[in-house]
Amino acid sequence: MNSKFLIIGALLGISLALGVGIIIGHFGIRKTNSSMSTKYAHLTRQADPQNYQTFISSVRAANIETDLKDLTSRPHIAGLPEDLESAQVIEERWKRDGLQVTKPKYNVLLSYPDDDRPNRVTLRSADAGIIIETEGVEHVYDPDQIKTVKPFLAYTPNGTVSSTKLFYANYGQLEDLTHLASVVGNASLQGSIIIMRYGRIFRGDKVMHAQYFGAAGAILYNDPSDYAPFGTTPDQVYDQKWYLPPSGAQRGSAYTGNGDPLTPIYPSTDYMTKLHEDSVNSLPRIPSQPIGYGEAQVILKYLGGNEVPADWRGTLSNVTYRYGGELLNTSSIEVKSFNRLERKDTYNVIGIMKGEIEPDRYIVIGNHRDAWSLGSVDPTSGTATMLEITRVLGEMHKNGFRPRRSLMFCSWGAEEYGLIGSIEYIQEYVKVLGARIVSYMNLDIAVNGAYYVNIKSSPVLFDAIIKAAKMVPSAYDPDGQTVYDKWMKVHRNDITNEPKIAFGLGSASDYFGFDQIVGSSNYDATYTFNRAEHKNLGSYALYHTSYEVFSLVKKFIDPDFLAHQTMGQLTGVLALILSESPILPLNISRYAFTLKEIVNSLNTSNPNDLDPLRDAINEFSQVADEFVERSKSMDIENPYEIRLYNDQLLQLERAFLNPLGQGPNDSDMKHIIYAPPKTNAYATMGFPGITDAIVNGIKIEIANQVAIATFFIRGASSTLKEFDKFIAT
Amino acid sequence: MNSKFLIIGALLGISLALGVGIIIGHFGIRKTNSSMSTKYAHLTRQADPQNYQTFISSVRAANIETDLKDLTSRPHIAGLPEDLESAQVIEERWKRDGLQVTKPKYNVLLSYPDDDRPNRVTLRSADAGIIIETEGVEHVYDPDQIKTVKPFLAYTPNGTVSSTKLFYANYGQLEDLTHLASVVGNASLQGSIIIMRYGRIFRGDKVMHAQYFGAAGAILYNDPSDYAPFGTTPDQVYDQKWYLPPSGAQRGSAYTGNGDPLTPIYPSTDYMTKLHEDSVNSLPRIPSQPIGYGEAQVILKYLGGNEVPADWRGTLSNVTYRYGGELLNTSSIEVKSFNRLERKDTYNVIGIMKGEIEPDRYIVIGNHRDAWSLGSVDPTSGTATMLEITRVLGEMHKNGFRPRRSLMFCSWGAEEYGLIGSIEYIQEYVKVLGARIVSYMNLDIAVNGAYYVNIKSSPVLFDAIIKAAKMVPSAYDPDGQTVYDKWMKVHRNDITNEPKIAFGLGSASDYFGFDQIVGSSNYDATYTFNRAEHKNLGSYALYHTSYEVFSLVKKFIDPDFLAHQTMGQLTGVLALILSESPILPLNISRYAFTLKEIVNSLNTSNPNDLDPLRDAINEFSQVADEFVERSKSMDIENPYEIRLYNDQLLQLERAFLNPLGQGPNDSDMKHIIYAPPKTNAYATMGFPGITDAIVNGIKIEIANQVAIATFFIRGASSTLKEFDKFIAT
Repeated sequence: MNSKFLIIGALLGISLALGVGIIIGHFGIRKTNSSMSTKYAHLTRQADPQNYQTFISSVRAANIETDLKDLTSRPHIAGLPEDLESAQVIEERWKRDGLQVTKPKYNVLLSYPDDDRPNRVTLRSADAGIIIETEGVEHVYDPDQIKTVKPFLAYTPNGTVSSTKLFYANYGQLEDLTHLASVVGNASLQGSIIIMRYGRIFRGDKVMHAQYFGAAGAILYNDPSDYAPFGTTPDQVYDQKWYLPPSGAQRGSAYTGNGDPLTPIYPSTDYMTKLHEDSVNSLPRIPSQPIGYGEAQVILKYLGGNEVPADWRGTLSNVTYRYGGELLNTSSIEVKSFNRLERKDTYNVIGIMKGEIEPDRYIVIGNHRDAWSLGSVDPTSGTATMLEITRVLGEMHKNGFRPRRSLMFCSWGAEEYGLIGSIEYIQEYVKVLGARIVSYMNLDIAVNGAYYVNIKSSPVLFDAIIKAAKMVPSAYDPDGQTVYDKWMKVHRNDITNEPKIAFGLGSASDYFGFDQIVGSSNYDATYTFNRAEHKNLGSYALYHTSYEVFSLVKKFIDPDFLAHQTMGQLTGVLALILSESPILPLNISRYAFTLKEIVNSLNTSNPNDLDPLRDAINEFSQVADEFVERSKSMDIENPYEIRLYNDQLLQLERAFLNPLGQGPNDSDMKHIIYAPPKTNAYATMGFPGITDAIVNGIKIEIANQVAIATFFIRGASSTLKEFDKFIAT
Repeated sequence: MNSKFLIIGALLGISLALGVGIIIGHFGIRKTNSSMSTKYAHLTRQADPQNYQTFISSVRAANIETDLKDLTSRPHIAGLPEDLESAQVIEERWKRDGLQVTKPKYNVLLSYPDDDRPNRVTLRSADAGIIIETEGVEHVYDPDQIKTVKPFLAYTPNGTVSSTKLFYANYGQLEDLTHLASVVGNASLQGSIIIMRYGRIFRGDKVMHAQYFGAAGAILYNDPSDYAPFGTTPDQVYDQKWYLPPSGAQRGSAYTGNGDPLTPIYPSTDYMTKLHEDSVNSLPRIPSQPIGYGEAQVILKYLGGNEVPADWRGTLSNVTYRYGGELLNTSSIEVKSFNRLERKDTYNVIGIMKGEIEPDRYIVIGNHRDAWSLGSVDPTSGTATMLEITRVLGEMHKNGFRPRRSLMFCSWGAEEYGLIGSIEYIQEYVKVLGARIVSYMNLDIAVNGAYYVNIKSSPVLFDAIIKAAKMVPSAYDPDGQTVYDKWMKVHRNDITNEPKIAFGLGSASDYFGFDQIVGSSNYDATYTFNRAEHKNLGSYALYHTSYEVFSLVKKFIDPDFLAHQTMGQLTGVLALILSESPILPLNISRYAFTLKEIVNSLNTSNPNDLDPLRDAINEFSQVADEFVERSKSMDIENPYEIRLYNDQLLQLERAFLNPLGQGPNDSDMKHIIYAPPKTNAYATMGFPGITDAIVNGIKIEIANQVAIATFFIRGASSTLKEFDKFIAT
C-alpha cells in the first residue's frame, strides 16, 4: 500500500476517534450518580457516621470532672454579680469553641434572704420561753461547702407571723389540705401556721394551698421518710452517705408561675411595661421557711390534735404525727422572714454553630447555669457536660466539620426562680424559634446517679434516641454494653419489648417553654439511680441543699465521671443525628400510638363523651401511616422533596399548640396534649383541658374541651396530608 | 515503511485517541452551567415570561360575560339549596380545569326574612290611620330581576316594636348617636325608633349603636345624597342611570362579628360545640329594617324636634331633616319583622393545582359566591372573572404548564352574613394555611366601574403588583396603555411618583381571615369608577339591591367586559408572578416605609410615648435593608438558599400576628398593625391597640400598647437577621 495514504488515513482515523471519544465521553456516559457529582449534590448528602464515632470517642470524663470542679468552686445564684461572671466563663469557652456567642440579659424580679439575718422559725412556750429557734443555716461538713445563700423560699414575703396554732398537712397537696380542713374545720386553719413535708408536688403549690386555706405562714421540711430512708444516724446520712442529714434544708422558689413575674406573655426587655408585684397572683403572700428535719422534729412534738392516718406519717423518731391545732404546752410558733424582692439582671449565654446547608433549622442543647448553692448536681452536672460537648464539636469544627443544620447551645439564667431565663428568651424570639427549632435537649441535672439514663421526650424522638443509645457505652457496665443494652436489662417496657421512654416532659425545667411556646419536639435526660435500692427515693436527697458540692458527685454519684461522659456522648450524638440526617429522623407513628394511650387513660363517666376525640385520633393514626408510606417513594436526592417532608414533620408538633393557651391567665400553656393541668387530682397522661373538665365534673365543659382537643388532632392530621388533598371530604 | 507496522500503529493510535477522547470528554469539559444541566437544575429555574404572556393573551372578555350572565340567572343566597347548587357549578368547572376539588361544608347560623310576609315599617296617625306602610319589596324594572330575597337586615330579630318617638341619627356613627343624645337627652331615646342613613360605617354598627343608646327598633335607608347624587327623577336613576331609584333597598348583615356566630375561634364542624344565640353579643337584639328613600321621604316628613346641622342633612326634597322626638300629628311608627334565625349548611369550593417544585407553598385566589339577590356586581363579577382565570390556567395545564408553587382557588359561602365561609375554612385549616400560604388575592366586587383598578394590599406586594400592572392592558383606554400607565395618569402619589396602592385591607371581605389569622401577604382589587364624576359616591349605588342584575353591568358598568378581562389578566398574572418566581418577589423595604408612615400618623399628647416604637421601626428598616443587601450575594442556583430566603419572607408577615389577638373576645384579630381598632373615632392607618388606647386616654394603657407593638416589630426584625445572629446585642 501507499504509505502516504496510510499515514493520512491513520491520522484522520485518529482525529476522528479522538473526536468521537470526546463526544461519547461528554454526552454518552452518565456520571455515576450524575446528580451527586454536581455542585449541589451535597445538599442531600447522607450523614457521615464517622462524625458520630469521632464525637463519641472524643468526649472525656476527665474534662467534665475538671469543669465541674471549677464551676462549683464559686456560688452562681441568679441576679448577683456571679450571674454575669459565670456567664462570662461560658462565653469565653464557647468563643474558643468557635460558636457565635451572645449574652442577652433580662431585668427580672428575683428574691433573696438577708445576708446577715437568717430567716427563723421559733417555738416558744408561754412559761419556758424559746423551746427552739432554728439556726437558719446548714451544718458544714466539707471545705467545699463555701458559704452560699441561706435556706429560704424565694418570693415568700418578709414579715413575722405567729400563732398558737400549728397544723401538719402531710405533703401539702390540695387533697391533704382539704382533708385537714374537713378534720379540724376550716375556721381553725385561719391565721394558723401550717407545716408540710417536701415531696410529691412542687413546693410553690404547697405554700399556695396553705395560703388558700387561710394560713398566716408556712413551714416546709424534708421528712426522713423521703430523704433519709435508711435512718438519720450519721452513718446513714451525709457526709457518710448521700442521704439528707438533720440540718439539710431545701431551698427553692415558691412562685407558681413561669418566667419573670412582672412580664407574663412578653419578655422583660428594657422597653416592656411591667406589672406591679401586688397584682401577680402567682407570687406567695405568706411568710414561709424551709427547715431541716432535725429542727422540725423538735417542733412536731408539740403538735396537738388527733393522730394522722398511716399514709400521713413520716419516720421521725419520737414524734407522733398529728393533725395539729393549739400547740401543746400553750406554745406559739413564729415564722420570721427577712426575704426581699429585687429587680436584677440575669444573663443567658447563647452560642450558635451555623449550619452549612440548612442554617435556618436549629438543634438546641441547653441547661440552666444558676444554682442556689454550689449546684454540683443541679444544674452544674449538666453545664459541665455541655461544655465538653461544645469542646468536642469545636475541635471537629476546627478540623473541617460543618453541621448540616445549626447547633445552638444555651446557658440559662434564673431557672431556679421560675424558668425565667429560658422563658424570657423564648418570649422574645418566639417568631424565630417557633419557625425553626427542630428539638431542644435539656441537660438540667444531667447526672444524679449512675444506674441508667432516664429520658422523657416527645414521642417522635423515640427512634433517634434509640439509635443514639445504641452507639454510646453505658457507664460502669461491662465493655460493649451500651445505654440501649442497659435499658433492655433494667428499664424495659415488657409489653412492647422496647426501652421505656416517658412521653411528655412536665414543667420542672427549661424544656417547658420549648414544649409550650416554641412547639419543638423536645428531650430531657438524667443519668439516675436505681430507685429500688434507695427505698424509692423521689429525688436525690441533697437536692437544693448546701451539700451539692463537687465531692458529693465525686464520692457518691459518679466517681469516674463515666455517667457524665455518657450523658455528653448521648446528648451530643443525638444532636448530631438530628442535625446531620438530611431526612429528619422523627417518627410520627409513635405520636399516634401515644395519643391512643392518652385518650384511653381519660376517665369519663360516660365513655361516649370521648368519641369525637377517639375518631380524630384514629384518623390521625391512619394519616400518619399514609404519610410515612408516601415518604418511602420520596426522591431522597431532591433537596426540595426532603425539605418539604421535613417541614411537615416540624409542623406536626406545632399543630398541637393552641395559640390561646389555657385561657387569659395561662396563655403560655399552649400544648394541647402536654400542658400541665390545673388540677392535680389524679395522674393523667395528657389533654389537660379535658382532665380539668372531668375533675370539675361539668358536662358542657367536658364536651367543649373534647371538641377543642378533637379540633387540634384533626388539624395535625391535615398537616400530614398531601399538599392538594388536606381538606377533609 | 512496513505497512503492517503502519497499520498496527494506526489502529493503536486510533484506539488510544478514542480512549483519550472519552476521558477528555467525560472529565475534562465542564458542562456549561453544569449544575443547570442536571436532574435538579429545574428546582431553581427562572420563571418563564412566556407563561405570563400566554395567560394574559388567553383571557377572554366574552367568556366572562357569558359566565356572569349564567351565574346571575339564578339566586344564590347562602344556606338554601341554591348554595349547594351554585357550588356544584363551580366544582364542575374546576374539575374540568384539572384542579383537585373539594366542597367542604359548615353548618352555621344564618337568617332569613319570611317568604310570604315582607318586613314592614308602618307610620300611623292617631286620627287618620295608616299614613304609609312600606311595601317590603323593590319595584321591578327588568325581566332579569327575578324574585329574590326580600329586603331585610340579616340577624335582626323578629318582632314588632312601635313608638310615638322617631329620631334621626344621621349615619348612625357613634359620634352621631352621642351628639343626638346630647341634644334630645338620653332618656328620650329609650324605647324609640331610630332612623339612620346608609354610608360611612358598617350597617351592623349603626344598629348596635341605636341598640346601645336604648332604641327599641331601627330603620336604615339610602339617602339620595349618597346614592342618587344627581337627583331622584326617573331619568337620573335606575334603570335610566345606575343610581338608586326610590324603592331600592340595601340588604345586608347586621352581625358585628366574623365567622359563624355560634363557633367563635373554632370551625363549625360536626363535632364542635356551639354557643347559644342568646349569649352572642355581636348579634343585634332590636328589630330593624332597610327601606327605600321613596318611603323614607314620607316618614321623615313627620320628624319632630329641631333641625339638624347642615352636615346631617340629606337631599330628599320636601323634607326638613330634624333630630326627631314625638312624631308630628300624634303619629306612631312601627317596625314589624318576620326574620328568623336558622342553622344551615353553607359550602366552600376549593380547587388546587398542585405545584411541581414547591407544592407546599400556596398562591390563593378567592371570592365569595353567595349574593343577597342576583349579585351581578357583588360578588359575581369576581366569580365570573375567577372562572376565566381557572379556565385559562386549566388550558395551560393541559398543554404542559406546571406551576412551581400550588395555585389554590376558593369560592366562599355565606360571606354576606359575616365572612362565614372563609373564616370557618381558615379556622379549620389554620395549621396548614398559616405555615404555607404566600398570598391571598380577593376578587369580591372585581368590577364596579371601568376607570382604574383600585388596590389594597400588604406593602410587600407592591413591586409584584407594579410588574403585573405593566403587562396588562387598561380597559377602554388606547391600545398599549397598561393598568400601570393608567395609574400614573389618574391614581398617582405625587410625592413618591408611584401609583397609589393602599396598605392595609380592612375588614369588609374574605381577605380578613387571611390577614388576621393566616398571616399571608394579601391583596384586594376592584376595577372602579371615577368618584369625582359621581359626586364622590361612596360605593356603587345599587349595592345589595335587587337591581344587581346582568344588565346593570352590561349597560352601565362594563359593556364590553374589558374591565372584567383586565381584572382576570391582572390577578392571574400576579398569581403567576408569585407562583413562578423562584425568589418570591416580596419587597420588605416597603414595609419599613409604611411602618414609619403609620407611626407618624399616631396622635399622642406626649410624642415621647412612641419612642420605643420609633426606635424599633428604625431598627427594622435597617435590618430590612441589610437583609435585602445580603440577598444580592445569594447563590440563586442553590435551591436551599432561595428556599431559606423565601421562608424568611413568609415569616415576616407572620411576625406581625399576636397569637392572643386583641383580647379574649377578639382573639381572631391578630395582626398587630392591621387589625381594625375597636374605636373608630378618627382615621388611623394602623396599630389598633395603640389607637384604642389613645382614644381611651389612659396613660398606662398607651404605654402598654406601645410596648407590645414594639415587641412585635423587634420580633419581625429578628426574623430577618442572619441565622446565627438574630439575638439583639
